[in-house]
Amino acid sequence: MKSFSNKKKIAKTWFKNLRNEICNEFLNLEKKKSKKKIQFIKKKWIKSKKKSEGGGEMALLRDGNIFEKVGVNISEVSGKFDNKYKKQIPGAEKNPNYWAAGISLVAHFKNPKIPSLHFNTRYIVTTKEWFGGGMDVTPCIPDVKQKKYFHNELKKMCDRHNLSYYKKHKKNCDKYFYLPHRKEPRGDGGIFYDYLNTGSWEKDFSYTKDVGIVFLKIAKNIIEKKINLRWNKKEKLKQLHKRARYAEFNLLYDRGTKFGLATGGNIEAIFMSLPPLASW
Amino acid sequence: MKSFSNKKKIAKTWFKNLRNEICNEFLNLEKKKSKKKIQFIKKKWIKSKKKSEGGGEMALLRDGNIFEKVGVNISEVSGKFDNKYKKQIPGAEKNPNYWAAGISLVAHFKNPKIPSLHFNTRYIVTTKEWFGGGMDVTPCIPDVKQKKYFHNELKKMCDRHNLSYYKKHKKNCDKYFYLPHRKEPRGDGGIFYDYLNTGSWEKDFSYTKDVGIVFLKIAKNIIEKKINLRWNKKEKLKQLHKRARYAEFNLLYDRGTKFGLATGGNIEAIFMSLPPLASW
Repeated sequence: MKSFSNKKKIAKTWFKNLRNEICNEFLNLEKKKSKKKIQFIKKKWIKSKKKSEGGGEMALLRDGNIFEKVGVNISEVSGKFDNKYKKQIPGAEKNPNYWAAGISLVAHFKNPKIPSLHFNTRYIVTTKEWFGGGMDVTPCIPDVKQKKYFHNELKKMCDRHNLSYYKKHKKNCDKYFYLPHRKEPRGDGGIFYDYLNTGSWEKDFSYTKDVGIVFLKIAKNIIEKKINLRWNKKEKLKQLHKRARYAEFNLLYDRGTKFGLATGGNIEAIFMSLPPLASW
Repeated sequence: MKSFSNKKKIAKTWFKNLRNEICNEFLNLEKKKSKKKIQFIKKKWIKSKKKSEGGGEMALLRDGNIFEKVGVNISEVSGKFDNKYKKQIPGAEKNPNYWAAGISLVAHFKNPKIPSLHFNTRYIVTTKEWFGGGMDVTPCIPDVKQKKYFHNELKKMCDRHNLSYYKKHKKNCDKYFYLPHRKEPRGDGGIFYDYLNTGSWEKDFSYTKDVGIVFLKIAKNIIEKKINLRWNKKEKLKQLHKRARYAEFNLLYDRGTKFGLATGGNIEAIFMSLPPLASW
């Protein structure tokens, strides 16, 4: 069995390498569309004044030829959960120390025919340990074929690891990404899992890696199919309205946002997901 | 002493007449700027399937020459507070019945040099009764002279009613319209009061009316002064960023928004305040 320090090192290295690969592939897509020079701007942040509590790095690309705004955040943080949170976190009630690393991504596109994309995975250690993450897709113009392709790819990937995962993790996603005040789902759904610990770290890590690899495959496929489609003003306005609902979800309900704001997290990293332009 | 039914009738008639006057004056400003035909679109809504619980009317003007989006909502609703809320509301703990009427306004302007304006007043009856309301101003480009004028007008008005009001009601506003996650106030402040019941309904109503009258005077003055100022792209972008904070405040903290969403209020009326365009 691997030691904790070994597992932490392997996991955080994976998140960083995946970030690099995603950024490279996204830049390659940008280059296909135009010769305008586009770059990710990287910005390191620390969690608190105590440097020992870690931090992260945000990579942000704005006003691209394809991406209107895409942020990829990686982080490695540690600390103690305060009294309010420690009861809610497995393994933290008696010993509030935690360590967490992860990757998180949100992409909003210029072309309203390309759906917004959201993906994250993480590895968390308290006196217990687990993986979590997933992805979902939010189109503003319905596309049945794309939805079918997306869920089919997710199912194939899940089935490679455990035949119960797709159904279970899809259900989590549907339940979570729902706007009760609008009585509507955020988008086309996807998969999300949390507290994954089957007893085999290798297997759980392997699933978590696959979620990242398949996200990149799906993202590229969805983008490439629509990269050259034309759109009109009405469709752009539809996108701005759909994005308003995206902001509503993140500000009203998202647990990560609430947790980040409550624990004094880095505002820029927390709000990275919010749309570059939205209309109410 | 007036009967409750008389007071309710007088108050709700005031809110409606004030709405009409504000809409007329705002349309007059629009006409000064251009001959493009602009109208408020009025839309009635009901609070619930029980028609007896009342509802309201939203008046919305979009894409004007001056106003990018302005909504004025009047409402008259009644019902029973549920268990969660009745403990928080004066006079509702033993008898959860309530009646409320009010006016609420938010204006976002095309010209980034004109600040966003927010105003509301209301009259609420449980086994107790009180008035509440106020106004605040959110510029995206600081204007010391305008801030001074605004607070001076408020102070003059408050002082006509009670020499302690301005200080007290300004403090309420500063405390409430603050974004802790950004460590910044929403804007230039203003005045807000709640649970106002001095024992004289006439006096409290008179103050509430004056708040509305002075709002209209201030709004016209601020708008007219800036109506013809030019602006550039950079200033417009600044406005879109400031408006994002406006949306953050309303979705993360605003009590009215939370109350409306929790009690199944009319989404369009609740989100009337959200900006026509915002950028993160």
